[in-house]
Amino acid sequence: MKILLAQINTIVGALEHNTRIIIETIRKARTQNIDLVVFPELTITGYPPKDLVEKKWFVEKNVHQLEAITPETEGIGAIVGYLAPNPTAEGKGTFNSAALLCDKSISSVHHKSLLPTYDVFDEARYFDPAPSVTPALFRGKRLGISICEDIWNDQLHWGRRLYKRDPVLELTEQRVDLMINISASPFTLGKRQIKHDMFSQIARRHQVPLVHTNLVGGNDSLIFDGWSNVFNRRGEIVAQGRDFQEDLLLYDTDQTTGEHHPTTAGGMERLYQALCLGLRDYVRKCGFKRVVIGLSGGIDSSLVALLAVEALGRENVVGTFMPSRFTSEQSTKDAAELASRLGIEYCVIPIEPIFTSYLESLSEHFRDKPFDVTEENIQARIRGNILMALSNKFGYLVLSTGNKSELAMGYCTLYGDMVGGLAVISDVPKTTVYELTTYVNRDREIIPASVLTKPPSAELRKNQKDEDSLPPYPVLDPIIKAYVEDRKGVEDIVAMGFERSFIENIIKCIDSNEYKRQQAPPGLKVTSKAFGYGWRMPIAKGI
Amino acid sequence: MKILLAQINTIVGALEHNTRIIIETIRKARTQNIDLVVFPELTITGYPPKDLVEKKWFVEKNVHQLEAITPETEGIGAIVGYLAPNPTAEGKGTFNSAALLCDKSISSVHHKSLLPTYDVFDEARYFDPAPSVTPALFRGKRLGISICEDIWNDQLHWGRRLYKRDPVLELTEQRVDLMINISASPFTLGKRQIKHDMFSQIARRHQVPLVHTNLVGGNDSLIFDGWSNVFNRRGEIVAQGRDFQEDLLLYDTDQTTGEHHPTTAGGMERLYQALCLGLRDYVRKCGFKRVVIGLSGGIDSSLVALLAVEALGRENVVGTFMPSRFTSEQSTKDAAELASRLGIEYCVIPIEPIFTSYLESLSEHFRDKPFDVTEENIQARIRGNILMALSNKFGYLVLSTGNKSELAMGYCTLYGDMVGGLAVISDVPKTTVYELTTYVNRDREIIPASVLTKPPSAELRKNQKDEDSLPPYPVLDPIIKAYVEDRKGVEDIVAMGFERSFIENIIKCIDSNEYKRQQAPPGLKVTSKAFGYGWRMPIAKGI
Repeated sequence: MKILLAQINTIVGALEHNTRIIIETIRKARTQNIDLVVFPELTITGYPPKDLVEKKWFVEKNVHQLEAITPETEGIGAIVGYLAPNPTAEGKGTFNSAALLCDKSISSVHHKSLLPTYDVFDEARYFDPAPSVTPALFRGKRLGISICEDIWNDQLHWGRRLYKRDPVLELTEQRVDLMINISASPFTLGKRQIKHDMFSQIARRHQVPLVHTNLVGGNDSLIFDGWSNVFNRRGEIVAQGRDFQEDLLLYDTDQTTGEHHPTTAGGMERLYQALCLGLRDYVRKCGFKRVVIGLSGGIDSSLVALLAVEALGRENVVGTFMPSRFTSEQSTKDAAELASRLGIEYCVIPIEPIFTSYLESLSEHFRDKPFDVTEENIQARIRGNILMALSNKFGYLVLSTGNKSELAMGYCTLYGDMVGGLAVISDVPKTTVYELTTYVNRDREIIPASVLTKPPSAELRKNQKDEDSLPPYPVLDPIIKAYVEDRKGVEDIVAMGFERSFIENIIKCIDSNEYKRQQAPPGLKVTSKAFGYGWRMPIAKGI
Repeated sequence: MKILLAQINTIVGALEHNTRIIIETIRKARTQNIDLVVFPELTITGYPPKDLVEKKWFVEKNVHQLEAITPETEGIGAIVGYLAPNPTAEGKGTFNSAALLCDKSISSVHHKSLLPTYDVFDEARYFDPAPSVTPALFRGKRLGISICEDIWNDQLHWGRRLYKRDPVLELTEQRVDLMINISASPFTLGKRQIKHDMFSQIARRHQVPLVHTNLVGGNDSLIFDGWSNVFNRRGEIVAQGRDFQEDLLLYDTDQTTGEHHPTTAGGMERLYQALCLGLRDYVRKCGFKRVVIGLSGGIDSSLVALLAVEALGRENVVGTFMPSRFTSEQSTKDAAELASRLGIEYCVIPIEPIFTSYLESLSEHFRDKPFDVTEENIQARIRGNILMALSNKFGYLVLSTGNKSELAMGYCTLYGDMVGGLAVISDVPKTTVYELTTYVNRDREIIPASVLTKPPSAELRKNQKDEDSLPPYPVLDPIIKAYVEDRKGVEDIVAMGFERSFIENIIKCIDSNEYKRQQAPPGLKVTSKAFGYGWRMPIAKGI
């Protein structure tokens, strides 16, 4: 049996667009004598459709799309993800489902059993779990069709299991010739090894090959990395799709291996590709062509500009340098040099006259109070206003350039450097920003060396350095990771070898800046816990 | 049996603070020969604790607090809400529970069975459902203890049920003398009648009195209105707590009625009280004392200033008027007159010099492009910057003054008039803003009459009127309600008697402004569907 793993890039909510891609793919597959095309989870609606699922007309329209695809399956099978209405009198009324289409009819429908409801996932908000599971029959074979999370509850793999049921086990107990899992599993650093080990173990345990099609593309904060693949019954990868791009991967069950695009990329290369994909898809799927970035001469904005050039082409990137009385000569040089090396449009808009007019307008009201964070923020907010003005006037999307360490500590100005449509590196800790910048400079120096070597500074007051306000990043970042990603408390982190008061101050700082984060632009998620949709903390609180 | 319904105002995450209130209440009750004190849902942690539940140390500390309360129950019973660890090997690991404390020990623990996972609720994210329910035994009586949502699935009351189980039925089938429900049920307009009818029906159906303690107070976007009460077995209210304030309500099971604070307040009075409570608690629980409001002379900012004075006292409210070349004489008069009538601190900061300096700095880059929304937004963002500067310099919290109609249509400037720590009326449609303002003016004219009679305008360009860009609010607001609150599609709304293209344009406008709403400050929820935490829409989408 010839199977095509259709690793496509859908758009959330774009029912007709997604349907068109599905139909084109099926037509293409028919010309290649494919037996079965396997699409990713919720193919028709895109993933995650969020509260669109609660709209009755949206679910109905998605069913109509499935009905439009069905006649295209003469002589071929296709597994398509969609929203299936639940006709029973109880529950939410919708399933997250996979339809097996074959020979112009819906051969069988399979609902998702395990509904992830952690981090960025809200599936229990929308879906009813499958009451039971049954293998699908297709050309004499028994297919064990499952959907994403369904495969994430193997008893042998996990110490503590989130769910009581194991739909994969329920299927294999009914005898299956092939396991098929359709997924929309977002990229995070380090997750691939977990997936590899889990898939491999499940294939070995049940002694059945596992075919797994994953979504590719960016949708708001989430980046889907593709990496569709097939594991044989010995738990070995025998076919593997491309990373971070669309791919149609062929696998023939009668042969021992299929197409294989091995990943040689290390962590930094994968992070780089993930950010480029997430950036490109956000800009394009929001209908923008060009972006504008406030260049400071610092490492964060330099890296974001480089990523934007890679993702969108240099003709679509505008860099704006907005110097003040506190801007150093070195930063002035570095910003111009970077823009020149990237070959992007570059404009300089000094904020000094505007800053002066604010100070004059406010002087009477500030009554000789000393220069403090207020005046720092005014500068950042002038820059924010200018970037948004360029966005309004020319239709650019503003890219925000703050990193995760800043966002955690609130070392950033709300409505200032935090403005933008997308926060490209808001889930990348500062030490990783350095690592990634070093990586992109590996063959030739694209980002000027001085950007990497000078001490980080917001340049919002005289001789300001990040380290005046924050611990050194190599100290800070592991603490942020422990608190945010690993959910450790004060005691656990102190036990990592720190002074209690030092840790308490950092945690207090992280907690008290929740109000800033809740007004931040969406940021690309690349770690196991990003601020944003999957981080849900109260603002007014007494911890 | 003498029961005290302890309608208290907890703070999310403030374990020690909440515990102190619980202990003080129990001690007071002991002096009054009370038999049983009933606290609201998740008393120890406050509600909703959100992702704090995922922190192991937080759950452990909350258990320690329960252990600190237990010794206080000599000769008295207390039902206290807390997070109970789930020791089994599967699931999320935590229950949302009620402990019955009695005579210095934990007599029994009761877990929540039905976990709401819609709108603002995420309980399946955090909790395991109770595997089964059993009545509690207390002084010879059988108590059917349930938690909030547990009582919201009565088969006779609802057409379509969300859950298969009915824990209330499961309890009454085991014979109970008294039903007790501890709740954290947020206020929304019109919800009280639903609750009244449902509680009444359940008491009648099971022929058992129902005691219901609800939380009171504001926590971020949510306002809990109290209204704790007791229904007798005939479904009549026999005891009722105060609205929108803490209350200790006495009910004696041996007598036919308890204390009763009847509500005579109509919808506008309740809305007014809800907004005041939500505003006061957000400001106080975030640790602020004073607030600053940008007064435009328009109705939204006038109403918010009035609410702030009611909630915080006039000495804690600062009004700032920031005129430009487009500000009318009438607005100038109205803003000053309002501040004078409210007796608040008032300052005038003209934005004209700053606006001019922006235009000069940008003129070269804008290359003679005509005045458009860019220049409008620049003005709004200058005002935002000034408000934030006052916040930074003097420690004020900025109150945002936009209404729901604007937020729906994106008729507001991100980082401009949208800045602030709290959006006080962002869930109040413009027509309701008028209704509420008329209501607060009912006895004497506090908000100048001209504020109500002049046509609404943002005054960001010459002779601008809201109706140049938007349909009249009495036409627009029902359409927004149909689309946002009632989740209707184009077809349904056209069927209400509108032209298709007119409706399509409005819906397109609502959909395409999602990016603004996701960066808005938290807003007080008063309708069945507020933008914010309970409204989860993709930004990049193809609908």
